[in-house]
Amino acid sequence: MDRNDRAWLLLAQAFVRVPELQSLLAQFGDLEEIVTQSVSRLCDAGLSEQKAHAISVPDDMALESALAWLDHDAHCLVGFGSAGYPELFTQIPGPPLMLYVNGNVEALHLPTLAIIGSRNPTRGGVRNAVEFSAYLAKSGFSIVSGLALGIDTAAHRGALQAKGTTVAFLGHGIDRVYPAANRELAHAIATSGALVSEFPLGAAPHRRHFPERNRLISGLSLGTVVVEAARRSGSLITARLAAEQGREVFALPGSIHNPLARGCHELIRQGAKLVETASDIVAELAPLTNHLQQFVMESKPNIKLSQSGDEDYAQLRKLLSHDPTAINELQSESGLTIEQLSSMLLILELHGEVESMSGGRYMLTA
Amino acid sequence: MDRNDRAWLLLAQAFVRVPELQSLLAQFGDLEEIVTQSVSRLCDAGLSEQKAHAISVPDDMALESALAWLDHDAHCLVGFGSAGYPELFTQIPGPPLMLYVNGNVEALHLPTLAIIGSRNPTRGGVRNAVEFSAYLAKSGFSIVSGLALGIDTAAHRGALQAKGTTVAFLGHGIDRVYPAANRELAHAIATSGALVSEFPLGAAPHRRHFPERNRLISGLSLGTVVVEAARRSGSLITARLAAEQGREVFALPGSIHNPLARGCHELIRQGAKLVETASDIVAELAPLTNHLQQFVMESKPNIKLSQSGDEDYAQLRKLLSHDPTAINELQSESGLTIEQLSSMLLILELHGEVESMSGGRYMLTA
Repeated sequence: MDRNDRAWLLLAQAFVRVPELQSLLAQFGDLEEIVTQSVSRLCDAGLSEQKAHAISVPDDMALESALAWLDHDAHCLVGFGSAGYPELFTQIPGPPLMLYVNGNVEALHLPTLAIIGSRNPTRGGVRNAVEFSAYLAKSGFSIVSGLALGIDTAAHRGALQAKGTTVAFLGHGIDRVYPAANRELAHAIATSGALVSEFPLGAAPHRRHFPERNRLISGLSLGTVVVEAARRSGSLITARLAAEQGREVFALPGSIHNPLARGCHELIRQGAKLVETASDIVAELAPLTNHLQQFVMESKPNIKLSQSGDEDYAQLRKLLSHDPTAINELQSESGLTIEQLSSMLLILELHGEVESMSGGRYMLTA
Repeated sequence: MDRNDRAWLLLAQAFVRVPELQSLLAQFGDLEEIVTQSVSRLCDAGLSEQKAHAISVPDDMALESALAWLDHDAHCLVGFGSAGYPELFTQIPGPPLMLYVNGNVEALHLPTLAIIGSRNPTRGGVRNAVEFSAYLAKSGFSIVSGLALGIDTAAHRGALQAKGTTVAFLGHGIDRVYPAANRELAHAIATSGALVSEFPLGAAPHRRHFPERNRLISGLSLGTVVVEAARRSGSLITARLAAEQGREVFALPGSIHNPLARGCHELIRQGAKLVETASDIVAELAPLTNHLQQFVMESKPNIKLSQSGDEDYAQLRKLLSHDPTAINELQSESGLTIEQLSSMLLILELHGEVESMSGGRYMLTA
């Protein structure tokens, strides 16, 4: 445990803001000094009495449970100004004071793209999110989203499927999972990327947390890609935040008869870049990611999601039946690699053609 | 016959351009005077020898056949500077010297919108073109297009269906119909709107005529609406011409997986207005069409295409069978008006659900 962790937790639990932290540091020198000050000295230094009290007379139970949570290799705190703190957050209004991270902090330091959208997308929207995410993750971007159902889930899954990095920003305490349906996904994200929250442990997924959380999704990202979104939806708020933060906003157009294309169309009208392919996005961001371009050139992806030929899909459909079949069996019968198969099976699952069962088994639906 | 008709025909057959006409008028006073000048005087006045010769020693057979064509109530010529010449053409580069018109010249003086797109559209594209055209025609716009198969045809049909006005600009002589499949449509357009060409009688539909023709489609229009178009298609040329002429360009977005949405997306990226509904277009053009807004308010359309309820469609589907049924019969059984029925049947036909037979009879397909 970092010797500053206790101090960070005290400041975070007191909801101290970055400008306040900077002022306190200027007066008291370092974190340890700040948190040992009396209420009155903290108030004299400009803090509200409530915050001063929360630091000086902390909620010990909350502190202990946070320290217990920290007692895990994969868990850490990233405070403003520390080495692990993402540079891009220093450029946004209202930067987070401290982040709770479960996973790999390095995931916050890759060039990042947010992929967001509706919680009730169309199948086509889900497929687009998975394919864009997989392509962009393979191109070296860390894919950020919000672990919600629908497009967020598809974005995280696409990146994981492509063996890329993905980061989920949570609108609640990092010791909780919401929605419950995404428990396994959250675990997979923590294993290869990171779950991140600025809310205290135990904080519930309050409605008011989500816009705050959204500023972090856009704020960590060079650009925010909106796949499908209704008008007046949370995704549009995130996109607006991205624009306000001076970041790129990308939107996928869709049929004029698809209500979930309307939000994207509204964004395009307001100046978002219309994108048809994930490579449009890579090209657009090239000036910002010169080193990344290098990376892409050096490590050309071997697997291309959804680029398996129609024949491969036809063959796979024949091998599948209405009884669960193990992926290993599909592999030996098809001659395809496990990676190819899992990409293809994911696509078929997202199309509603295939259902995945426990133990890596798959069956045809209906 | 206008006493100037012969002179207009001579000048048009000589391919005299508007700036040349203006120079000749300045020197000789009026059309009659110009066409009685000798070759050498016309050359001295600045015409090429070829053009001077064509005026002074005209192709009598062509002239006679044009005068014979003119000997029909619905046929007329509209020369630059005459009362019937559309004001909007005076604002474009390369205005036409003279138009051959078959139909109602007044159709050229309504506020006009072009609706254009692919010759091989998707069903959805056709439906959108019909619905936009019908709505805009009912709002008081004359709908201009190019009588091609696909979106052009749908645009003309939508306007006719809505009992609105539609104008077709041809890329060949007005005495021909191309494509042959649109013979009946051309007849219907001439009856309620107008067929228009600047090419001499008998001129074949040469490939090079079409870009020239396209500048008239966009040039007569306050805005050009592109419904579906491939990249590098003629529709994009027309849209570019519209933009160069300072007119609005509207494009309908579509799925990123629809190749015929790509042209529209390219236009949107280049600054075309993304539109989701025909009312977007009316709203956008409102500042240009104040008197038109009045018109819309006064004569609210009674029929609304595709606004018949789902129940009406369900009822209609039940009344239809795989044997042809006359529309009168459908009317008496459904209680719907003939106008409502024909709108609904057109929509179903464009959806591929219904086939129209001779004698106003309809049957279910497949």
